[in-house]
Parts: sequence; structure tokens; C-alpha cells
Amino acid sequence: MLKLIIGNKAYSSWSMRGWLAVRQSGVEFEEIVVPLYDEDWDKRRQGDEFAPSSGKVPILWDGDIVVWDSMAIIEYLAEQSSDDRFWPADAAARAAARSMAAEMHSGFATLRREHGMNVRRRYPPAELSEGTQRDVTRIVELWAEARSRWGGSGDFLFGDFGAVDIMFAPVVTRLLTYAIPVPRFAAAYGAAVIDHPFVREWIAAAQEEPWVIEKFEVPAK
Amino acid sequence: MLKLIIGNKAYSSWSMRGWLAVRQSGVEFEEIVVPLYDEDWDKRRQGDEFAPSSGKVPILWDGDIVVWDSMAIIEYLAEQSSDDRFWPADAAARAAARSMAAEMHSGFATLRREHGMNVRRRYPPAELSEGTQRDVTRIVELWAEARSRWGGSGDFLFGDFGAVDIMFAPVVTRLLTYAIPVPRFAAAYGAAVIDHPFVREWIAAAQEEPWVIEKFEVPAK
Repeated sequence: MLKLIIGNKAYSSWSMRGWLAVRQSGVEFEEIVVPLYDEDWDKRRQGDEFAPSSGKVPILWDGDIVVWDSMAIIEYLAEQSSDDRFWPADAAARAAARSMAAEMHSGFATLRREHGMNVRRRYPPAELSEGTQRDVTRIVELWAEARSRWGGSGDFLFGDFGAVDIMFAPVVTRLLTYAIPVPRFAAAYGAAVIDHPFVREWIAAAQEEPWVIEKFEVPAK
Repeated sequence: MLKLIIGNKAYSSWSMRGWLAVRQSGVEFEEIVVPLYDEDWDKRRQGDEFAPSSGKVPILWDGDIVVWDSMAIIEYLAEQSSDDRFWPADAAARAAARSMAAEMHSGFATLRREHGMNVRRRYPPAELSEGTQRDVTRIVELWAEARSRWGGSGDFLFGDFGAVDIMFAPVVTRLLTYAIPVPRFAAAYGAAVIDHPFVREWIAAAQEEPWVIEKFEVPAK
């Protein structure tokens, strides 16, 4: 059986992507949550199962095969199990989907740094930095492009839920957590993501985790 | 014919990855160099051909299909033309290759920021910041893992030249440019990359570009 090592569901956005990807593949898996910043965390991440990634999560083990990094996990699962659950079939849509997923994978550092994921919190609206505003504008532009050209009658960026939605899911939770305003179509897309069964399952599980990490649980400035 | 839009060969590390990928695919392509920071650059990047990526390079056009971001370009070319030129066939090697390429794609920000690529320059050795040292250590660790487990009798990380070597090629040029010390096996790997015909071709072309951008041409601190 696949084995997925992840951090806290409340805070670990890359874990969320890896977990959604494995859920989306339809393959059975065992989930191992290692709370970040815990005493246990520092001990556990020295272990062999963490070795390939040098201690970062998520890590997917498939027997002796190991994949770390959420983007690589998506490509691995698409190849091994179910390409059509991750990437659109149409070549132009597929090229755009790969480009958008890659842009999320390496980009939007300011939004990510200034608005850490915390799916348990809702903060009142606050002024955004210029860098975060630029990131949000670009994200909305990508969503508009995907929805208008390839969304079809589906609720997601390329119609059905797939790799690009998985990559952007932690961005959607941030828009909610920090009450970041977006155009109506983007809010509707965000609502569809939050309402997706796998996303609901992740967020519900996050509520059950102990609230141990005070620094993440204070209101945003 | 494919059309690849890139920035200066001397400085644009992501362009280098995209260009090496297209060369590696074996598919004929037209190359369009738009000098970064030029007056022309600001005008050109407003144009339609830049629209999908919001002005960033590299961008690959295949008829009406567009792919931006070097990682997405690699996956596109692997699917469309020649998977075996990019990724190893063995599942475990392939999973590791994907993970390492992804780690390079989203990581090593300190090394990249503090040691901008400039394939025309050689600076004397200087003390590295803690962050850069950490990045270099991790990169060498990845190279050691790949070379020892999957290098076989080839000169490259997974034997033959492929996607992961393409992703790391601009790191190799930085090690040389900034005289960053690495273990002997890593230096030997770096020499093989620099000696690869496509890499030589890129570096040779970079010598021919006008030296217009003074700020990149002063010695590193």
C-alpha cells in the first residue's frame, strides 16, 4: 500500500497538495501525520523514511520507491495510476495546466510567506502588501484563463477536479482565512474547491488536531 | 516549427533550462532572444506572444499551443516527442528524477538570489552565506544519491543526459562562476555538464551577446 508522510493538516500546505493528489488517484494509502514543530517532529525527521527529502513533507512511499515534493507526487501518480484524473486530455489544455501547476509550484512566494495557511482560522480583511496583491492578481488571471477557455460546464479550472485545482487548493483556503477579496467568478471557483469532498475531508480532519502551536494561532497583524 | 522565447543567454538561467530541453528533444525550433532589461524587453513583453506567462521567459509555442515555465516545457516535450531523452525508464529512478527536478524547480532560493547566473564571468572564491552553503550541501547530496544509485557508467546524474541535468545545469555554471568548492565527484559531474555539446553551444553563444547590462558585469562582493 502507498504510504504518505505529511505534516499538520491545519498548516502544511504542501502536505495538503500531496494528500489531495493521493486521494485523487483513487489508490489506497496509509497516512502518517508527523506534527510540525513538535518535539517528535525533530526526532522523526532524522529517520530513514524522511531521508530522501532531507526532512521535508510530503513524502510518498510506494514499496521501495520514494517520491518527495508535491509536484513530483502528482506526476508519479498520474503515470502510475490515472492520468485522466490529473491532467486534461486536450493538448493545449494540458500544456496550460502543466504551466499553471508549475507556476504555482515555484511561485507566489510573497502570498505564501505573508499569509501562512491555517485552515482553522478566519481573520478580518486587512490591507495587502504590494507583493501579495501582485500574486493574487496573477492567480486570478490564471484562473480566469483556465475557466473561460477550458472550464466548460465543470466547476473546476479545467472542468473536472484535477492537478491544477490540487495545486491551488491551499491558495483558496488562504483567500478565505485572510478574507482576501477576489472577483465573483474566482470566489465561485473557490467555493467549489472548498466544497469538494476531499478538501472537506482534509479541513474537517484539521479541526481535530491539537492546537499546540501558539505562534500560528494568534490573529494576523 | 516550435518557437522558443528566451532572455539573454549570459544571465537567464530559466531560459537556459528551457532551451536545453528543446535541444534535448531533438525537435527543430526557432529561437527568439529578447534581451532582459533592454528597452526593447519592456516593449516586447507586452506583446501577445508573452501574454500567457505575463512576460516571463522561457515560453514555448507549438503552433497554437503554449507552454511557459521550464518544468512544464520539459514535461510537454517528454510527452510530445521523446520521454526517454528526459526521464529514466526504471520506476524508482524515475521517481527520484522527478523529485530532484521538482526540488530544483521550487528551491535553492538563496543560492539563486546571492549568485545570479553569469556564464561569462569567473570570480575569485569568497565566503558563502549560511543559506547558500546549505543549498550547496543539499544539491551535492542529491547529486551523490543520483550518481551512486543510478549514474551507472554514464557521466550524468541518471546515466545519460536528461531532465535533471537540464534543471541543474545553471547551478553547475554558478559553481564555476563563483568558484564554489564541491567534492571531487561533484566537480567531475559539473565538468561533464559543461562539456556537454548543448551546454557548450549555449555558453559559446552567450559570449557573443553585447555586454549591455553593467550591473551584472561588476565583480561579486
